[in-house]
Amino acid sequence: LGSKLWGGRFVGDTDPIMEKFNASIAYDKRMWDADIRGSKAYAKALEKAKLVTAEEKDNILHGMDQIHDEWAKGVFEVKPGDEDIHTANERRLKELIGEPAGKLHTGRSRNDQVVTDMRLWLRDAISILKGNSLQLITTMVERAAVEIDVLFPGYTHMQRAQPIRWSHWILSHAVALSRDVEQLQEINRRVNVLPLGSGAIAGTPFNIDREMLRQELAFDDISINSMDATGQRDFIAEFLFWASLCLTHLSKMAEDLMLYSTKEFSFLTLSDAYSTGSSLMPQKKNADSLELIRSKAGRVFGRCAGFLMTLKGLPSTYNKDLQEDKEAMFDCFDTVHAVLQVTTGVVSTLKINPSVMEAALSPDMLATDLAYYLVRKGVPFRDAHGISGKAVFLAESKSIPLNQLTVEDLRTASPLFSSDVSAVWDYSSSVEQYSAPGGTAKSSVAAQVEYMRTWLKKQVQ
Amino acid sequence: LGSKLWGGRFVGDTDPIMEKFNASIAYDKRMWDADIRGSKAYAKALEKAKLVTAEEKDNILHGMDQIHDEWAKGVFEVKPGDEDIHTANERRLKELIGEPAGKLHTGRSRNDQVVTDMRLWLRDAISILKGNSLQLITTMVERAAVEIDVLFPGYTHMQRAQPIRWSHWILSHAVALSRDVEQLQEINRRVNVLPLGSGAIAGTPFNIDREMLRQELAFDDISINSMDATGQRDFIAEFLFWASLCLTHLSKMAEDLMLYSTKEFSFLTLSDAYSTGSSLMPQKKNADSLELIRSKAGRVFGRCAGFLMTLKGLPSTYNKDLQEDKEAMFDCFDTVHAVLQVTTGVVSTLKINPSVMEAALSPDMLATDLAYYLVRKGVPFRDAHGISGKAVFLAESKSIPLNQLTVEDLRTASPLFSSDVSAVWDYSSSVEQYSAPGGTAKSSVAAQVEYMRTWLKKQVQ
Amino acid sequence: LGSKLWGGRFVGDTDPIMEKFNASIAYDKRMWDADIRGSKAYAKALEKAKLVTAEEKDNILHGMDQIHDEWAKGVFEVKPGDEDIHTANERRLKELIGEPAGKLHTGRSRNDQVVTDMRLWLRDAISILKGNSLQLITTMVERAAVEIDVLFPGYTHMQRAQPIRWSHWILSHAVALSRDVEQLQEINRRVNVLPLGSGAIAGTPFNIDREMLRQELAFDDISINSMDATGQRDFIAEFLFWASLCLTHLSKMAEDLMLYSTKEFSFLTLSDAYSTGSSLMPQKKNADSLELIRSKAGRVFGRCAGFLMTLKGLPSTYNKDLQEDKEAMFDCFDTVHAVLQVTTGVVSTLKINPSVMEAALSPDMLATDLAYYLVRKGVPFRDAHGISGKAVFLAESKSIPLNQLTVEDLRTASPLFSSDVSAVWDYSSSVEQYSAPGGTAKSSVAAQVEYMRTWLKKQVQ
Amino acid sequence: LGSKLWGGRFVGDTDPIMEKFNASIAYDKRMWDADIRGSKAYAKALEKAKLVTAEEKDNILHGMDQIHDEWAKGVFEVKPGDEDIHTANERRLKELIGEPAGKLHTGRSRNDQVVTDMRLWLRDAISILKGNSLQLITTMVERAAVEIDVLFPGYTHMQRAQPIRWSHWILSHAVALSRDVEQLQEINRRVNVLPLGSGAIAGTPFNIDREMLRQELAFDDISINSMDATGQRDFIAEFLFWASLCLTHLSKMAEDLMLYSTKEFSFLTLSDAYSTGSSLMPQKKNADSLELIRSKAGRVFGRCAGFLMTLKGLPSTYNKDLQEDKEAMFDCFDTVHAVLQVTTGVVSTLKINPSVMEAALSPDMLATDLAYYLVRKGVPFRDAHGISGKAVFLAESKSIPLNQLTVEDLRTASPLFSSDVSAVWDYSSSVEQYSAPGGTAKSSVAAQVEYMRTWLKKQVQ
Repeated sequence: LGSKLWGGRFVGDTDPIMEKFNASIAYDKRMWDADIRGSKAYAKALEKAKLVTAEEKDNILHGMDQIHDEWAKGVFEVKPGDEDIHTANERRLKELIGEPAGKLHTGRSRNDQVVTDMRLWLRDAISILKGNSLQLITTMVERAAVEIDVLFPGYTHMQRAQPIRWSHWILSHAVALSRDVEQLQEINRRVNVLPLGSGAIAGTPFNIDREMLRQELAFDDISINSMDATGQRDFIAEFLFWASLCLTHLSKMAEDLMLYSTKEFSFLTLSDAYSTGSSLMPQKKNADSLELIRSKAGRVFGRCAGFLMTLKGLPSTYNKDLQEDKEAMFDCFDTVHAVLQVTTGVVSTLKINPSVMEAALSPDMLATDLAYYLVRKGVPFRDAHGISGKAVFLAESKSIPLNQLTVEDLRTASPLFSSDVSAVWDYSSSVEQYSAPGGTAKSSVAAQVEYMRTWLKKQVQ
Repeated sequence: LGSKLWGGRFVGDTDPIMEKFNASIAYDKRMWDADIRGSKAYAKALEKAKLVTAEEKDNILHGMDQIHDEWAKGVFEVKPGDEDIHTANERRLKELIGEPAGKLHTGRSRNDQVVTDMRLWLRDAISILKGNSLQLITTMVERAAVEIDVLFPGYTHMQRAQPIRWSHWILSHAVALSRDVEQLQEINRRVNVLPLGSGAIAGTPFNIDREMLRQELAFDDISINSMDATGQRDFIAEFLFWASLCLTHLSKMAEDLMLYSTKEFSFLTLSDAYSTGSSLMPQKKNADSLELIRSKAGRVFGRCAGFLMTLKGLPSTYNKDLQEDKEAMFDCFDTVHAVLQVTTGVVSTLKINPSVMEAALSPDMLATDLAYYLVRKGVPFRDAHGISGKAVFLAESKSIPLNQLTVEDLRTASPLFSSDVSAVWDYSSSVEQYSAPGGTAKSSVAAQVEYMRTWLKKQVQ
Repeated sequence: LGSKLWGGRFVGDTDPIMEKFNASIAYDKRMWDADIRGSKAYAKALEKAKLVTAEEKDNILHGMDQIHDEWAKGVFEVKPGDEDIHTANERRLKELIGEPAGKLHTGRSRNDQVVTDMRLWLRDAISILKGNSLQLITTMVERAAVEIDVLFPGYTHMQRAQPIRWSHWILSHAVALSRDVEQLQEINRRVNVLPLGSGAIAGTPFNIDREMLRQELAFDDISINSMDATGQRDFIAEFLFWASLCLTHLSKMAEDLMLYSTKEFSFLTLSDAYSTGSSLMPQKKNADSLELIRSKAGRVFGRCAGFLMTLKGLPSTYNKDLQEDKEAMFDCFDTVHAVLQVTTGVVSTLKINPSVMEAALSPDMLATDLAYYLVRKGVPFRDAHGISGKAVFLAESKSIPLNQLTVEDLRTASPLFSSDVSAVWDYSSSVEQYSAPGGTAKSSVAAQVEYMRTWLKKQVQ
Repeated sequence: LGSKLWGGRFVGDTDPIMEKFNASIAYDKRMWDADIRGSKAYAKALEKAKLVTAEEKDNILHGMDQIHDEWAKGVFEVKPGDEDIHTANERRLKELIGEPAGKLHTGRSRNDQVVTDMRLWLRDAISILKGNSLQLITTMVERAAVEIDVLFPGYTHMQRAQPIRWSHWILSHAVALSRDVEQLQEINRRVNVLPLGSGAIAGTPFNIDREMLRQELAFDDISINSMDATGQRDFIAEFLFWASLCLTHLSKMAEDLMLYSTKEFSFLTLSDAYSTGSSLMPQKKNADSLELIRSKAGRVFGRCAGFLMTLKGLPSTYNKDLQEDKEAMFDCFDTVHAVLQVTTGVVSTLKINPSVMEAALSPDMLATDLAYYLVRKGVPFRDAHGISGKAVFLAESKSIPLNQLTVEDLRTASPLFSSDVSAVWDYSSSVEQYSAPGGTAKSSVAAQVEYMRTWLKKQVQ
């Protein structure tokens, strides 16, 4: 009344926009299964603590199984007032089993319930993403094994640098992804911790056996401090950043592949399944898949940035701000899940054009080898580098390829050149020099393939 | 076949995950109306360019009106293959009017079509947000006008600083929002530019009258360069940042209000319509609305960060990466739209507790006034500040409020103190000192109210 | 004592790490000139308010001029205890003129002083950046004017799309930068507002004439509300985002130029002044300048993201957190200042290879023109697009360029093809079709040049 | 000449702005020691590969030791042309030992050299930060042990929720920091990998023993793929995110402490060593240290965001863009290094006011206990929650504290209340209910202290 002297948009008891703004059921219903699992385990703990009878517990378990069926069959009906998945499931339980449903929340708070659900959900999601990653890495490693003899230019600064193996390039990206898998597993250890039994803030006051809950729900550990357990979302932040770094890796690979599939490079051709046409230009075949892959690094990092900003400066324990955690988690999972699969499809179906790739090798890419030729004759590398540079300049002045310089030409740069310099101009032997671990020699690349195969095997054990 | 030696997840011609990944219809259908408006205008331009007959144009317009009805009534059926709203509408047009539908895309590309749709959509969205902002500002200004006599502590560093008017605080936030409105209008000028007629990249080859298109669609200007027109999304980036800064403002106000509504401050009470209870603790009344408002600054900035990162280093013209623009735009609009309305609701319904607010004023908050007392007697401010500091220390040592020091006590700090110092200890006269523009004196705050009222009137003209 | 039972790293009265952590002099000394200007104006206002005598004012002005000289000559000595530029200058003033220095801060707070300094500094910085931007745009526009006859492939999705003018490409980037200039000027209007006279929070209690201060310091407006004036840093946030969007534009241009300067494209060659060599590979010439330009978009956006995150959820008015504003502002200015100049250098000195550029045009890029040929014969565009697509496919099957198909070949796709189709295969006449505003026809590009020249003239008036 | 028709800012061979823009010596000189260590190890490998003689190797080692001395004494002179630390050190080596210096770079590239230096530097930095973290955690745990008997309100949503132990609050933050330490160690495993011997891209062509290099430099592993080794900066990205999450934790603790140190809460008082005064208001004592801590979360996350954005979409292998890695790394190290130490200082010196803390406990915080009273009498929790809510409402209506309701009053809500309800109103026994692991009972908090002590011991082994 009087308080409305200044107007305002809303009259009445409830503000429908606030209600919608506050509700999370539209997205957190994805956790229906986790919520049911958590509640079933909690019912058992309540029985052990003598807060429900064995019969009540059985009623609850049975009711929860029915709710599970409804969700699984897509017939669960969300009703007005079901502001989140926890409310929805408990409301339904009450409808199904009556009174004992009212005991399920004893000593539990939505604060520990929601974070338990999220950890259960994310644990499964991580397992799926690990599988997707391993499939992609396997595809890459096996492709590298098959195409090990293909040479093409290695680029730095987007400029031709040195001849390398195509498989060396593939493996450089596979190795990055293998780090992602390792990091994901480390995160999973921090995800897989039971918060249930932390209540709203102070802990659980009844004789709830948290160790039993841990076993029921197959967590590795239980949380150490109830305030931290209910108020922290570090595992979400870590996951969002993981997604960002992983997709940054794939944005890098996509960028390479886009370059290689331009008309100008023509090193490879994407499968039609991963290209699209133009609404205007009949001849166009666009690498949309690669562009989408590249773009998603931004999207997921945006989620990470947004969530970190939301967390910054929050007081401790649960604040409603934390509700931003779930959409970010779901979106990053969905995005990485799709990107990993599409990338696997792209990588496994693209066709390389080995003759174009090898034709792109040019003698100037062996200028370092020319310097090494002199190093092997005792010239300090810095001087050899300078002499080779002179040779490059000489060839450019003459508008001829570097390997067309005569020995006489070369001798104007250094008297140490002799006819054996001709052996330098061989791309195949050039790459074979790089036989130290990690190099582009065939033996070294083959060793990388083996290393990765062994690593892959370990991951699925 | 052979190319699948290395395995990979997918066999066949089309990859369903890729198709879903590529499609935007799930979210860009929100632009159905803008797409129809753009196509109707384009049909008229085609007629003028003699690329369709008057009859064909009428068929197209009529068909588009039917499609409009279908969308408006919620009966438009999205079919498999409708990858985006443009395809869907054109597909439906073909079904409705046959052959002439195939002429609608003449000289147009999805590249200029999509960005035309976005600009039409966003122009409307900006208009709505401007309205929401003005309503909020009006509410604040009118509340400030009514409650101008309420004093309470002004804080810096979250510590009590000086007595101020409650309305001065309200207006400090209203003024920030008025800058948001001004910036939004500047952005709108860059949004309200016609790109249609830019084709895919090179422009439009037929005699399409872009000026006529501009008038039909009520744009202020036409784009200058077709490559820029189709490949830039600056107006989206600007809008996303605008949303971020606007919600950062509201996060600041929400933080203040949260502080003021703690038990410890007790300056104000939120309406029940904007509070929620606890699933565990019966006595709790949480300011969920304020926490949600605060959190959304992170969310929208995440969208902005994600989109900027997606744009970074993209080659020019249209790349599929730009598809990230729409979800970000929609989400930021929806979020700011809700936040502005909820904030208006919160601000218009909260109840202040003036007696508690005034009781929170304490004599030490007048230590600056004590220094000013000496300044008025000719003491340089730096010295006066020091003397007042000594008085504060003295009062603390004696565990008495600053205003309980006797004149003798004060004279130990400076001989200039005399009995007229008692006039300092009056909060009402303290605030009245700050009568310069922008200050917290009643006249100054009233002037701010008037300034804002005038400003508000100008906005709706 | 007892309170140290739990240990801790520090014993004593002051913590040197805290002192260093707290001090800003290391970077805010850059604002020495702005600080002096602000204090001189304030001294005049103090005289008008009769808080200092004319003689004291003159002493202050004279002292400040001496301090100015010291800074300008690089002999100002920062002393321990000078935690910020304001303290340093006032400390020095006291040394130079004694007592009256103690009156300078009357009614002023560091809260309004620091933000006044920042606004003065940033106003100058913006003026410099505007100049740099205009120089770059001028260079681009004039280059576009000279090289208007050079054709090359326009790309979308990094794939050859349609023939365009090189100048059309240049202008597409110039137009984006012109928006940056316009936005910068809008921001400047919000920068150029006087906060001085806002005190710490409540305003100024003496008869300080804020209008006089505004005129002295050449601000356009005075701040409306003292709490907002001292506690907001929106103008910094806006500037940081401006820098981010501007450099995102340049990252896009740099990416194009990097592509065009690869061996594979060979469209252009960077001046040696903007390239560097390799420590290992003698033949390498890397486009380091372009890579640095591209990378800086990330850097400045990081500053923007960091500052927004710092602002999020802060209570209103001054909090020490705001100290993050200055390093961000300086770094973004320095970075954009350098990038704009280097880009101007790169763009003005790079050499294009017109013959290579035109040789990269291929008949399939005229597939749209082939469709338009049919459109002009009455075929609906959708059908024409399909027929042209068939022709493209036919040429690919025959491994011949599209323009090598005979009329008979073409007639298998559509009977409407006749010998006049040969006119389609002319790149020069193809581009001339796009004569609508914004298109790539010579007249249209020339009009864009003129438009930009006129715009440039307006900016310097 | 002709190419300058369009003007441009720069005439001549070298652009001084480009040179400054390109150079990194201003900041990468911080890695002088790492660079020397790397080069010394590499000299030994060169000897083993017979690329330098034993004498040459000794000369190099000796020269490098001299350079080390010069840096350590602060007398190393950076000369024009020293664009980075690697160039500077090698240039100096040449001056000191002549010819053999020219052999040091044989088979090495700046690409593998710089990333080796960074890994050596960061490994040391991580070790320091781990030490700082452990010191802070130790301080917190020991303080928690001493002050275990202090009770105060636990807050959720910034509203009083339930009585908890002050030590429970301390430990909630210590536990978060212990996760940071664990994550830091995981990152360190990925930092501590040798890239040297990867050359520019293809590997090392001579018989360089990478395993020997690994041992010399005490790395745990050697990099698997040379392209990945030289082109990835994941370990930097991970470190930057680690810093962001760690400081987000501290921003949360700082926010709590700021709240608790407001006049309104008055739970604690910061040491003067971590507070500052106001230039205007004599009575102010601001918690600047806490505000700075809070703000730095934004700063470091900005670095992380900026670097991720720089990485997004980069082609693989070394690009100059990666030069953004070092300033970000240094700044995040310096910031976290300072913040951890200042936080330790703040936490170890602040004084709590136990009487105020306990006085802030109010009977309504026991409403949950009232519900539990009924649960223990067999009422389902949902009903008990409702009954307790009614009691709260009744007390509010009567304007009396909840514990002043008579048994008769309570019976209007439920007949199960009897005189034993008086036992509910005891804060000390309330907290003792929460004795499950992680709860706020004394035994449970003591167990957390012991857990953390054990954990701390493990970290320093």
